[in-house]
Amino acid sequence: MKRVMLIVAYDGTNYHGWQAQPNGITVEQVLNQALSELFGEEIAVIGASRTDSGVHSLGNAAVFDTCARMPAEKISYALNQRLPEDIVVQESLEVPLAFHPRKCESRKTYEYRILNRRFPLPTRRRDTYFYYRPLEVEKMQQGADYLVGIHDFKSFCSVHSQAQETVREIFSCKVEKNGDLVTIRITGGGFLYNMVRIIAGTLIQVGIGERKPQEIPFILEKKNRNAAGPTAPAHGLTMIGIDFKKELTGQ
Amino acid sequence: MKRVMLIVAYDGTNYHGWQAQPNGITVEQVLNQALSELFGEEIAVIGASRTDSGVHSLGNAAVFDTCARMPAEKISYALNQRLPEDIVVQESLEVPLAFHPRKCESRKTYEYRILNRRFPLPTRRRDTYFYYRPLEVEKMQQGADYLVGIHDFKSFCSVHSQAQETVREIFSCKVEKNGDLVTIRITGGGFLYNMVRIIAGTLIQVGIGERKPQEIPFILEKKNRNAAGPTAPAHGLTMIGIDFKKELTGQ
Repeated sequence: MKRVMLIVAYDGTNYHGWQAQPNGITVEQVLNQALSELFGEEIAVIGASRTDSGVHSLGNAAVFDTCARMPAEKISYALNQRLPEDIVVQESLEVPLAFHPRKCESRKTYEYRILNRRFPLPTRRRDTYFYYRPLEVEKMQQGADYLVGIHDFKSFCSVHSQAQETVREIFSCKVEKNGDLVTIRITGGGFLYNMVRIIAGTLIQVGIGERKPQEIPFILEKKNRNAAGPTAPAHGLTMIGIDFKKELTGQ
Repeated sequence: MKRVMLIVAYDGTNYHGWQAQPNGITVEQVLNQALSELFGEEIAVIGASRTDSGVHSLGNAAVFDTCARMPAEKISYALNQRLPEDIVVQESLEVPLAFHPRKCESRKTYEYRILNRRFPLPTRRRDTYFYYRPLEVEKMQQGADYLVGIHDFKSFCSVHSQAQETVREIFSCKVEKNGDLVTIRITGGGFLYNMVRIIAGTLIQVGIGERKPQEIPFILEKKNRNAAGPTAPAHGLTMIGIDFKKELTGQ
């Protein structure tokens, strides 16, 4: 038997998120079905990041076990033949049998993309959040800087979360403007439920001057969801990728 | 009465191109209907670029006449309320009554976007053409350089075209690589039917070494559609914008 990791990209528009659930089709369900058909055995993946409904991915990770002889590297090609065009496996590789993508150290990177212009652009309506009030990117970056490090992010966690422990480490949070696209790129050891979207919603408030960058430490201190800004819409969020290097190579 | 110009962006995925036709819904028809409803009179726009089925736009132009009192600048806001999310007017402005967007001097810019990587990216499947064989961008640029200037582009014109005159002027043709996105950006005084897509299909052949850049002048000389490469798919093409400066300001 071997354990195979898949790096999975998807357009989340038509899915009820990653995790299998009874009320709508999810990325996990589609993957499980395609894998089960491909190998002729019941397969259930374990996902690294359980992205919400509407959230996109360039590089989410999932593992599954199989006794099939197909080399791990070939599985991506065979699987993509059976997947719809809004889910594409970017890579497949063998990992140790003990490797679990949620129960290990990793660095996850997300991007929240804001299309900041007078009118929306139809071709970017699915993977960016359109926001017309001009954003001051330097101020957003000043606010973002306060988030880097180890903090209790309870204020930036959905009240619907069941997380007991709300301390997380953020390695970097960069706000960049490229033409009319403002991108918040954030890398951390792990994220709470809706955390990146609440950070985005709060930094947007900073960007329009509704809050000062210096308020961020006080929001963290309050440990209360009401202290932070709104949850920015799901379709602006993309899971960029997960770095398991330390876990997989020991470096 | 006044003549109003609209700058129109659209995701062409769900339209049978720009021009009104009996077999499917077009951008022109949707605009005409929204304008007619808005002003309570029958309105028919004149488009600058009659883009094909599946082609996108950031800045196509169209004009119409109305006696309505609404200031031209406000029409974009009112119209966008009545348009579907895949068509968004970016600007509306008054132009001289004699201005006709096809019967005047202008500079049109198109981009052909190629996603050049091992596997497709679901979030870019609508507005880029996925091509997995690695492209040599420098060679594509060498080939593109031969297209700049005044040439007979008959070899780069669909056989279904009814154009009598196939001489056109290309002001610039730049091939750029940004990550895994290869963009052919071309500006010209006018384009023949399928011209940009045939140029893209031919430059892709140059990019994979199937043709040499130096063949381009010979392809032009032949004045025969069969001499050029295939027509690249419509969904990789975006109409970027049209510069009417000379016509509208006299400069």
